[in-house]
Amino acid sequence: MSDTPYFKHHVFFCMNKRDDGRDSCGAHGAETAQKHAKKRCKELGLNGHGKVRINQAGCLDRCDDGPVLVVYPEGTWYTYVDTSDVDEIIDSHLVNGKVVERLKI
Amino acid sequence: MSDTPYFKHHVFFCMNKRDDGRDSCGAHGAETAQKHAKKRCKELGLNGHGKVRINQAGCLDRCDDGPVLVVYPEGTWYTYVDTSDVDEIIDSHLVNGKVVERLKI
Repeated sequence: MSDTPYFKHHVFFCMNKRDDGRDSCGAHGAETAQKHAKKRCKELGLNGHGKVRINQAGCLDRCDDGPVLVVYPEGTWYTYVDTSDVDEIIDSHLVNGKVVERLKI
Repeated sequence: MSDTPYFKHHVFFCMNKRDDGRDSCGAHGAETAQKHAKKRCKELGLNGHGKVRINQAGCLDRCDDGPVLVVYPEGTWYTYVDTSDVDEIIDSHLVNGKVVERLKI
């Protein structure tokens, strides 16, 4: 457990979409946000082994706080409203290692 | 980053399925394995806040080692052949905190 992590920051976006009337991250821009993050990290050269990985995930079971994402191995959970929030998480947390307290859940 | 983790063990199965002829975890029993893990953890009462979460994920970008899963926050990566390997990961790692060295990648 003291190994160097395969990814320095492994980011999982909850992409769950419900079609039974209940709310879900997928109904709050999760797909747009995840695609945006993936593209932006690629542009910044952050992607790859030893660096950053942006992933899709199924329901992360924190629906009441959604839309949500989690950054591992540090286990920092965030909510976001739009892609500018996602940019702030990228710039502050992924690039500079500084948690974005206002979006943390 | 010293917060108690929301999930003690957060498990992500790569569920990626390619339809372009290239190989993928989805072609090696990922769906069966993830469903099996989810059901078994539920039966064992492991699921929930502060305990275990079994998740689906998109491509985890370790295709050559696949099928793969990763357990966070510890960042332990595993491959598996069948559901008995998954059971061993559950019984040893998730229940007893002991890494399964023979499946670790």
